[in-house]
Amino acid sequence: MRHKDEAKQDAIIRATVKLVNEIGFVSSSVSKIAREANVSPATLYIYYENKEDLLVSTYIDIKRRMSEAALEGFDDGLPIRDIIKRLWFNLFRFIADNPGDFQYTEQFGNSPYSSLVDQSEVEKHFAPLVEIARRGIERKIIKDVPLEFLQIFIFYPIFVLANPRLCAGFEGDEQSVETAFDMAWDAIKL
Amino acid sequence: MRHKDEAKQDAIIRATVKLVNEIGFVSSSVSKIAREANVSPATLYIYYENKEDLLVSTYIDIKRRMSEAALEGFDDGLPIRDIIKRLWFNLFRFIADNPGDFQYTEQFGNSPYSSLVDQSEVEKHFAPLVEIARRGIERKIIKDVPLEFLQIFIFYPIFVLANPRLCAGFEGDEQSVETAFDMAWDAIKL
Repeated sequence: MRHKDEAKQDAIIRATVKLVNEIGFVSSSVSKIAREANVSPATLYIYYENKEDLLVSTYIDIKRRMSEAALEGFDDGLPIRDIIKRLWFNLFRFIADNPGDFQYTEQFGNSPYSSLVDQSEVEKHFAPLVEIARRGIERKIIKDVPLEFLQIFIFYPIFVLANPRLCAGFEGDEQSVETAFDMAWDAIKL
Repeated sequence: MRHKDEAKQDAIIRATVKLVNEIGFVSSSVSKIAREANVSPATLYIYYENKEDLLVSTYIDIKRRMSEAALEGFDDGLPIRDIIKRLWFNLFRFIADNPGDFQYTEQFGNSPYSSLVDQSEVEKHFAPLVEIARRGIERKIIKDVPLEFLQIFIFYPIFVLANPRLCAGFEGDEQSVETAFDMAWDAIKL
């Protein structure tokens, strides 16, 4: 039974992402999303209280999967530059492979729903990255600037590069991703 | 008469930005936008062929104003770092002062309407920046990487920093903007 439930929840999440990306938050009703997911609205309401809950949960689910992908092969023992480089490539791959998920998070961030997110719920997934940044600052490898600044120069370039709508013509070949990482590293290194 | 026309066009553009940011592209009909702008739909159709034309024209108008703001006080004779620093601060100020305009361009970039834009129409406004980047590369001051990469590390951090929805808690004080600029410069400098 549990397997079946997860499959349904997964279908609902995927339907939410697809529909919101196609027709926007306002027009994406619970009934349309249920139809897209091939479940009844009653089934959807087993898992989600209402439209807000569904939209927020979808956002948090994407962020969780994104952080899991980013942290794949995470090795605390490596030099900080290598740790961040692996994160960079992992995240690039996730976003390039899941453009719909990423588009949803972008739209969500621009929507009034973003104020409903419990940020600690998202941030806990990224705690190891924060820890690495702190260590890098302590060891005078990374600039002593607010964490947001590090995040902006490390992660936002990926969001743009991996997004064909924002960066048409970028091949995403290993060499280009490497060049972009070097620029990001130059921005944050001391 | 001309003055009056411009005021009307301006009201229509502002109404488009406001409504799209509030209710999205799909729900923003021409009649709702006309009402918001306090003009009749017939008046709106004097200036814009249809909804697509209005949305695309609004986008191009914002990009034009953005480039004008960025290029304010542009002095070709200054060192390249100083030229880019001025651009950076100008653009930061424009986006911080016009969050609605910026939000519109972001949403627009994520919408199917973005494929209707004649990119050369937008790019011509940013030609002096491209020229400066080229010169910087030639003189071995800036990294020899594709222009998109320079753009990503110079402009995207501003978009995030100047956007309170994306970067809550950032004060935008002179010192912080300076720190962020230094990081951007480290990313692109040779």
